[in-house]
Amino acid sequence: MPAPAQHIHSPANPLFKDLRRLAQDSAASRKQGRAWLEGDHLARAARARQVRPALAVFAESSWQQSAHEWAGLARQNIVLADPLFAALSALPSPARMGIVIELPLPAQPARFAPGAPTLVLDRVQDAGNTGSMLRSAAAFGFTQVLALQGTAALWGPKVVRAGMGAHFALHLFEGLQPEDIEQLAVPLLATSSHQGQWLHRTALPWPCAWLMGHEGQGVSAALARQASAHIRITQPGGEESLNVAAAAAICLHASAAGREAGE
Amino acid sequence: MPAPAQHIHSPANPLFKDLRRLAQDSAASRKQGRAWLEGDHLARAARARQVRPALAVFAESSWQQSAHEWAGLARQNIVLADPLFAALSALPSPARMGIVIELPLPAQPARFAPGAPTLVLDRVQDAGNTGSMLRSAAAFGFTQVLALQGTAALWGPKVVRAGMGAHFALHLFEGLQPEDIEQLAVPLLATSSHQGQWLHRTALPWPCAWLMGHEGQGVSAALARQASAHIRITQPGGEESLNVAAAAAICLHASAAGREAGE
Repeated sequence: MPAPAQHIHSPANPLFKDLRRLAQDSAASRKQGRAWLEGDHLARAARARQVRPALAVFAESSWQQSAHEWAGLARQNIVLADPLFAALSALPSPARMGIVIELPLPAQPARFAPGAPTLVLDRVQDAGNTGSMLRSAAAFGFTQVLALQGTAALWGPKVVRAGMGAHFALHLFEGLQPEDIEQLAVPLLATSSHQGQWLHRTALPWPCAWLMGHEGQGVSAALARQASAHIRITQPGGEESLNVAAAAAICLHASAAGREAGE
Repeated sequence: MPAPAQHIHSPANPLFKDLRRLAQDSAASRKQGRAWLEGDHLARAARARQVRPALAVFAESSWQQSAHEWAGLARQNIVLADPLFAALSALPSPARMGIVIELPLPAQPARFAPGAPTLVLDRVQDAGNTGSMLRSAAAFGFTQVLALQGTAALWGPKVVRAGMGAHFALHLFEGLQPEDIEQLAVPLLATSSHQGQWLHRTALPWPCAWLMGHEGQGVSAALARQASAHIRITQPGGEESLNVAAAAAICLHASAAGREAGE
């Protein structure tokens, strides 16, 4: 017998309208203090870290087969008429299920750890870049992300989707000011296109914090002054700059590789 | 005196409708044999490589100040009423000028070079990932990109935008079949999440071809069989996989760094 659920058929339903904002508007996660995770992969990534859904949301056509896996876990179950679920989804082919989780996550500490391996994001604009960097941070053994004010909302739907579950392997802190970064007790490494040591010829400290900046303007002067080293990525092709998520992947991987070489 | 231009005020104008498709629909570049480059940065990247615009397109409000730089270069100039230019643009803040170029580029050879440093894309879906990889390829000294059938259209507007001008530093070949890749005379390197040598402990051959696959499915079996080596990226964080553009950046950079170390 399926669990009890609220069925919604009207796009005017206030609960539906809140959900649609959460699933489509990157500012809504902050306003509502919740996040939308669409599809089995993300929902399972949350569950694996003991994050219990506040809501589980199903398309009518998937309710029967999904209920046994998900409906018992959530405090509330909602079944949307299929066209409503499609209107909610920002995916080209809607996943037909999703969960809403409350923020901050239960395991999230109130303050960031000054000595932890860290990725610092300074006003990174693009949600896809931001999600990709969270994924790289988790893959390469970094444990926290500090996002300065002006960075894409980390729990916005596009960042969550691009993060592919990395959000649950990291401690995430948002809305920080440049002076908050001074509290980090690990060396702060900034990438630069025109000064500093070559990455592939540098022995990197561990733990450390990597600083990645705005797609057009790079890292702010106030933050760059705090860096203990400026690191350049060789670009024999002579192009001006890399995509910021590509640069981050190279730097974070170099830290992981250097750490293994030193073991 | 500004150059002569055709002024368009109606969204029903057939020339406008063709332009809008080119600027928004990733399949239109193939159909029309042209590409849309919005904004000064991309238009200048084309001009720096002696690519002459077939059309230059201006918002009415930018026509007076942009004409002296661009209007003399194009075979035809078009001035759009500002709301039409905004309807064409896929950017959050429209650049108010753009050019249309004809494909293939004049400098593009008819066949790919079997011995050149190469990036091979096997059904990569996401336009942002594809553009980021073109940018990394150009930055790290790779000279050509071979895209197998099923990869995002390389001259589609989102790939062009994410490429940030890298399209003009590379020779691009699209619509290839797996058997075409057999004609490459350089070692073909495939990334793998579960087998092969660790990237950071491997001396990489140069020139080489890196093979990057579909975001969900990876590289096809037919192509993986052609690889002369399988390479793993260390992931001490234990995450399952990296974003494909992040993985490509790490691999292409490792080639460039290895080449410098060997010099």
